[in-house]
Amino acid sequence: MALLRAEDLTIGLEIDLGSYTVTTDEIVAFARQWDPQSFHVDVEAAADSYFGEVIASGLHTLGVLQRLAVLGVYQHWDVIAGRRIRSIELTAPVTGGTTLTGTLVVEEITNRGPERALIAVRGRLHTADRPVLDAVFEMYLRRTA
Amino acid sequence: MALLRAEDLTIGLEIDLGSYTVTTDEIVAFARQWDPQSFHVDVEAAADSYFGEVIASGLHTLGVLQRLAVLGVYQHWDVIAGRRIRSIELTAPVTGGTTLTGTLVVEEITNRGPERALIAVRGRLHTADRPVLDAVFEMYLRRTA
Repeated sequence: MALLRAEDLTIGLEIDLGSYTVTTDEIVAFARQWDPQSFHVDVEAAADSYFGEVIASGLHTLGVLQRLAVLGVYQHWDVIAGRRIRSIELTAPVTGGTTLTGTLVVEEITNRGPERALIAVRGRLHTADRPVLDAVFEMYLRRTA
Repeated sequence: MALLRAEDLTIGLEIDLGSYTVTTDEIVAFARQWDPQSFHVDVEAAADSYFGEVIASGLHTLGVLQRLAVLGVYQHWDVIAGRRIRSIELTAPVTGGTTLTGTLVVEEITNRGPERALIAVRGRLHTADRPVLDAVFEMYLRRTA
């Protein structure tokens, strides 16, 4: 199947991304490497912390959204590269066992030169009862001149 | 040593974060898990791509900055949790062997209730000859009432 180019997308297109369940082991393993703060990596210390257990690094939560978006959407698009992530709102902590469900909406398509366009997509993750992450990603896609 | 609280910080405080060298193996391993786009994970396909080799996921580059910031700074601060990341600008690709050097600047300190403050810090990564990443992180710190 040919990859979708900028001209194949429409503003307002909304795509379900499916779900991903985060485990405590994954929270700790991710954070040991990239965000080794005690409330992410130290299960015992976190028991006495503000949240009562370890919470996922915001970068980990962002990684869950990106993984779902790549497998569900971007692998079918003719992406050149990411350019910018606009404000990333982290609205609730993610703890072990949390299932995150994602959606993606195409918000902007702007031509940039004869062969590429800048696409803005809003990605969201939520649990069964509340929003967790909201971010807008800008990326370059190929377009047909 | 006691952890620093919001009242111990000053706007304009700038801290060197040191350096981190990204390898091609790490670029591919990170992206396989969190951002499996071909230009991040497929070394052979990337040879024919826009950049000529695999480039790091923007999330991976953000992880490098966060790791440096935690080890150099945040582990000495009384952080409650991250709240938001403002616009993340990715201004140059990161390829295998690239050494990234970081700095952090405290930009805002705003009291939020009797026991915490919202802190905004700007983090930057650069190579020997150009900027790579610029992002502003907001996090809650404890403060003394």
